[in-house]
Amino acid sequence: MVRLIDVPTLQRFVAQRGIERVLAELADAIEAAYARWDEFDKSPRHATHFEHGVIELMPVADARRYACKYVNGHPGNPQHGRMTVAALGILSDVESGYPILVSEMTLLTALRTAATSALVARHCARQDTSTLALIGTGAQSEFQTLAIGNERPLRQIRFYDVDPAAMEKYALNMSEQNLELVPCDSIEQAVSGADLVSVATAIKDRQSLLTTAMLRPGMHINAVGGDCPGKTELDSAVLPECDIIVEYEPQTRIEGEIQGSDHQVTEFHEIVRGRRPGRLSEDSITLFDSVGFALEDHAALNWLYEHLTRATDVDLIPDAHDPRDLFAMLQPPTYGRAASF
Amino acid sequence: MVRLIDVPTLQRFVAQRGIERVLAELADAIEAAYARWDEFDKSPRHATHFEHGVIELMPVADARRYACKYVNGHPGNPQHGRMTVAALGILSDVESGYPILVSEMTLLTALRTAATSALVARHCARQDTSTLALIGTGAQSEFQTLAIGNERPLRQIRFYDVDPAAMEKYALNMSEQNLELVPCDSIEQAVSGADLVSVATAIKDRQSLLTTAMLRPGMHINAVGGDCPGKTELDSAVLPECDIIVEYEPQTRIEGEIQGSDHQVTEFHEIVRGRRPGRLSEDSITLFDSVGFALEDHAALNWLYEHLTRATDVDLIPDAHDPRDLFAMLQPPTYGRAASF
Repeated sequence: MVRLIDVPTLQRFVAQRGIERVLAELADAIEAAYARWDEFDKSPRHATHFEHGVIELMPVADARRYACKYVNGHPGNPQHGRMTVAALGILSDVESGYPILVSEMTLLTALRTAATSALVARHCARQDTSTLALIGTGAQSEFQTLAIGNERPLRQIRFYDVDPAAMEKYALNMSEQNLELVPCDSIEQAVSGADLVSVATAIKDRQSLLTTAMLRPGMHINAVGGDCPGKTELDSAVLPECDIIVEYEPQTRIEGEIQGSDHQVTEFHEIVRGRRPGRLSEDSITLFDSVGFALEDHAALNWLYEHLTRATDVDLIPDAHDPRDLFAMLQPPTYGRAASF
Repeated sequence: MVRLIDVPTLQRFVAQRGIERVLAELADAIEAAYARWDEFDKSPRHATHFEHGVIELMPVADARRYACKYVNGHPGNPQHGRMTVAALGILSDVESGYPILVSEMTLLTALRTAATSALVARHCARQDTSTLALIGTGAQSEFQTLAIGNERPLRQIRFYDVDPAAMEKYALNMSEQNLELVPCDSIEQAVSGADLVSVATAIKDRQSLLTTAMLRPGMHINAVGGDCPGKTELDSAVLPECDIIVEYEPQTRIEGEIQGSDHQVTEFHEIVRGRRPGRLSEDSITLFDSVGFALEDHAALNWLYEHLTRATDVDLIPDAHDPRDLFAMLQPPTYGRAASF
């Protein structure tokens, strides 16, 4: 039997457990996975490109569990009432090769992406970070706010989106948080005075949303939206001003803000494992060039499997009475030897 | 919603439709896919190797549908009452990137493998093929018999397995077929007089089950079991005696009987598309070096999706009222704006 976690099951689980707690637990689970970096069999994702978007497979494994995420990216989907990104996850037992979990991963990906941002902030943002700027108040914005709020004493959120409706949605969703919400008229205004700048927009293009003029010493930049070839959000002149942290260099060189550049980077596991500090000085500008790595999905699926045990089991793998006799399993019950249904 | 086809649902469907009909329909569906060879985005499978086995992803797509099979290969599984190979399939809509089907694929893979063998026999075996030799009477043997029986006027089956229990299982499962069943004491005896030799054993090693002394003019060899690096079934001296047909050369060079060799091969789609004959002369010896290609899974999943419509729908993809507002979907119903559960 394979455990099936559908959208309503995940919704109930997260709502009951509390989003902040879920984000904190995911950040811890992802940190524990990065600490075991060398134990994972890693590869860049497998992408198939189509006229309207991309479909990707993100496999990764340690000696105990194999995880694979199916995820698409279709920028035109919202015009048809669909999400840009939808995802499914498979988790399996390495010893038998049998799948043990099939799960919705659209919502789980949103949670693990914010948890990863927060985890990197845990190691790289200044301890006194209290002002967060959000560039883009789309699907990630509330999760980012709560996840980073778990790690640093946030007091003020300065936010900007090209779409006023997205800003209203964000303000409404965050209205019960104990945070000073400052809607801004421009990126410049939002970034002004911010300790941590989180950039997550949907535009599929090379953008220069953040420029060197907006940088200030000690800032941490969380760049979430530059995550596929041809899509970046930061002016390229920003990169040499920053200590750049990436998840998995071979993948980020293809997909991230550093695509096509030769800037030196630090893989995040080096920081988690104490091989170098997250922040070299109080005045350093740190940049997390986030693209999303399969390791985070592995950690999230394992976390989900361990904690969400009250789900439906489905019969997706035959329980063969004789593994060499698949034929009998496809016979009508009355035919020949006993079939298995 | 995503359609979910579990094992009992597939079992009922195949039993009701009839295995022979299913095999024939699958052979036709796979042939139609090979005829559209250039329309597919193809890549070798993604394999992750472990101490006890391998886990593979097999993605392939045309402009309409994307298919991905998750499949393991764990030779020690039968010792623990598990199957060597278990599989899951995902089929999705290319235009939206949304999955439309999650299906059991263990049984479906057994069916499509035999259907592919039969399809190649349709094009390559002599029309007067009436004697089939089976080397190995494991999980594939009954499917191979019925599938090839759809294509050629089989009268006699000569079969051999190192395990007498496997031979008894085969004889019992085939007892109601109108076929002369000839159990044999050796490979030599089984192959003697056979028009078509189907080899499908499980031994993970380089074997020489079939040697040049056993070949005879006009024979068609269906080599199913040599399907991963380090696993072959034919004596290497057999290869230069045969016209070798493969599914997808880059993959077969890694996994098939031709691994590590430079023998010239024909990709099967060339035959389906009429660019060369399946059989050059009545006396040619043809060899199908079968490893299993993602295209066949694409065809099988599409066939299943079109015909098995009475299945359960599961809620694996959020039905976002606002694609930018995933946050609201994870709130308790009483909190803030209306959540979607």
